[in-house]
Amino acid sequence: MTANVLQIIRKSKVPLSKTDIVAESGLSLSAVSDHVERLINEKLIVVSNIGNSSGGRKPRLYALNKDAGYIISIELGTSSVRVAISDFDCNILYSDHSPVDINEGPEKVLTHVYHVVKHIMSTNHIDQVSIKGIGIGIPGPVEFTSGLPISPTIMPGWDRYPIRNFWSKYFECPCYVDNDVNIMALGEHAKGLNFEVDNLIYIKIGTGIGAGIIYDGKLYRGSSGSAGDIGHFDVGSDVICWCGNTGCLEAVAGGKAIATKAKELALAGKSNFLLETLDDKGELSLKDIGAGIQRLDTLSVELIRDSGALIGRVLASLVNYSNPSLISISGGASEFGDILLAAIRQGVYQRSLPLATRNLLINKSILGKSAGLIGGAFMTIDQLIINSTDDNSHSFHDLKQRS
Amino acid sequence: MTANVLQIIRKSKVPLSKTDIVAESGLSLSAVSDHVERLINEKLIVVSNIGNSSGGRKPRLYALNKDAGYIISIELGTSSVRVAISDFDCNILYSDHSPVDINEGPEKVLTHVYHVVKHIMSTNHIDQVSIKGIGIGIPGPVEFTSGLPISPTIMPGWDRYPIRNFWSKYFECPCYVDNDVNIMALGEHAKGLNFEVDNLIYIKIGTGIGAGIIYDGKLYRGSSGSAGDIGHFDVGSDVICWCGNTGCLEAVAGGKAIATKAKELALAGKSNFLLETLDDKGELSLKDIGAGIQRLDTLSVELIRDSGALIGRVLASLVNYSNPSLISISGGASEFGDILLAAIRQGVYQRSLPLATRNLLINKSILGKSAGLIGGAFMTIDQLIINSTDDNSHSFHDLKQRS
Repeated sequence: MTANVLQIIRKSKVPLSKTDIVAESGLSLSAVSDHVERLINEKLIVVSNIGNSSGGRKPRLYALNKDAGYIISIELGTSSVRVAISDFDCNILYSDHSPVDINEGPEKVLTHVYHVVKHIMSTNHIDQVSIKGIGIGIPGPVEFTSGLPISPTIMPGWDRYPIRNFWSKYFECPCYVDNDVNIMALGEHAKGLNFEVDNLIYIKIGTGIGAGIIYDGKLYRGSSGSAGDIGHFDVGSDVICWCGNTGCLEAVAGGKAIATKAKELALAGKSNFLLETLDDKGELSLKDIGAGIQRLDTLSVELIRDSGALIGRVLASLVNYSNPSLISISGGASEFGDILLAAIRQGVYQRSLPLATRNLLINKSILGKSAGLIGGAFMTIDQLIINSTDDNSHSFHDLKQRS
Repeated sequence: MTANVLQIIRKSKVPLSKTDIVAESGLSLSAVSDHVERLINEKLIVVSNIGNSSGGRKPRLYALNKDAGYIISIELGTSSVRVAISDFDCNILYSDHSPVDINEGPEKVLTHVYHVVKHIMSTNHIDQVSIKGIGIGIPGPVEFTSGLPISPTIMPGWDRYPIRNFWSKYFECPCYVDNDVNIMALGEHAKGLNFEVDNLIYIKIGTGIGAGIIYDGKLYRGSSGSAGDIGHFDVGSDVICWCGNTGCLEAVAGGKAIATKAKELALAGKSNFLLETLDDKGELSLKDIGAGIQRLDTLSVELIRDSGALIGRVLASLVNYSNPSLISISGGASEFGDILLAAIRQGVYQRSLPLATRNLLINKSILGKSAGLIGGAFMTIDQLIINSTDDNSHSFHDLKQRS
């Protein structure tokens, strides 16, 4: 139950008094006092400031001790990796963004990431003991309990690779692996929003299209950890997807699909701007379509609008099914002004039922590119606290020996 | 917290000792003893039998007192209504099934239901005071907090009709209203399954097609109570739906759609059996297709198979998105042997991702036609207990005055 009290303090956006914690936890005041004392002794929380009095002595307010330790957060993409070291309140202190090719397989990629981590640590004089946990987001399905990637199609060679074991060779602290969009959803929900949202769908539109789901205030991973896959929703087209089926959303509206279509249409003479770019670079990427939009290139605008309309159609079904109060849009394609967002909104409102859209907001992600790193730290601390409840006689700082 | 202890005892499939309750609740043994004593005094739980000893005195085991009161459960359909009186453990004691026409509007329909309830009560000598709550499921979206139907398209005249107020004219106990499939999902999860399932999607295929969602062991209603609507998933056909859009699942694969198509094709000479039935009755219903399947009428089999394939395609997307461990199928069309189920399974497995189907079961509902009535009682008792936590100084039996 000490862990519960720590979670309540940590998840609150303002410092809390013991009375606040009693109200939130349902525990007695004397139990709360015991837990608070233990957390103070372990330096996991601090007295933040003195609150307002309702008559007698002003109550002490407690907050998370952001200096309780460091967290390493890693967001692996198909062509680059972001690495950060954050404090215990998920503030990013140091970070790095470097190219990787995920096709080179886990050993080579993770060794690169390890060197980046070591470099950040030595440059900033951070020793191993103060690192309390490592959180990694990868662009594929993860069995969360084991941290194993399961048939991650855009990560050849990574199927069931024991990522956790790689890190335990170098670090004593626990390592947790999750799907990248799950982690982004966690980060956005916990640290991005300045209002309360219970039900959030976080969408990342990159090479593929994925979703992270917050239900009733908690990340929803599903029965085997694969929840949130929307890339293979059937949109009724005859385009063949890498998964073997036809008409998957990702195969028609994802970043790679947009770039492929752009090349095809540029070569057919539909856009001078994109044809020139193609001549220069030999290939087209989502970024080139972004540049096209800034120059008001008609084809670029149409491609993004069509993609948004398809994504909106799928989201309309999900809005009817899961009735969220917020949909946050992130990823490369979301960076191109409001064209994508407007098309998505139109698609959703056209096909959703009245009661489902009454309180629905569809916005760009507030944390944007930082969502993954901040969420990675948040997920890691969450797991450290959850796993500590197994045995209350150990202090939280002992976790590195036990996990 | 007494309410929490009551929920733990009630939701357990076996009687529990105080030590079991301590383990489940995280409360101290002395706190659990206090709550148990209070619940015994209020006759909400009973000493069930004596458990196995682990050395000393054999522990007492506690179970819900099924005789703590009666619950009225009502399941309203478009053309009939089921009414039951159950005990406090959701066992149906008395029930009735009678025709109604939901188009006649709330006053007329509910007055009929009231007379049915009064008749059951007087026949079985049940007085008003022993009725502790009323639970109603309706075939449309409900704002659960207020119990108001919101734009329920197949219930003309019911939009925002205060169903709860109707009942408070006659009964002092609280009344709760929810969507019918939500209630069925609750019933199946709590009382139908003899194994633990955290994530369940309950599908009802009747005139329309709807879903009830259990996530992490709890009914998920969404932000405004409309979660579970899958009838308007876009399946890419050009059939116009009553909602104004084209290609909705319900408009192509629902019971009404099947019957319409059957009529069309029978008139085109595709089935002698259905044409004869049509000549006899002037119309075709889902039941007639069922009779056709029993006679191995090819058209009937094809119609149900096509409907199952479409429903399977939509469920495949939902399996990828929400990764349930069980999908339960119920409703008229599910009664026709295994043709529908086989087609649904095939559709799901063809389009779902490996990790998402690894532990997935797709079965017929175990409670079947009783799911709604049992679930209605379960939902009502759930709400009685949840609402009682507002003020621990009142006994549960005071609820009727306070709600």
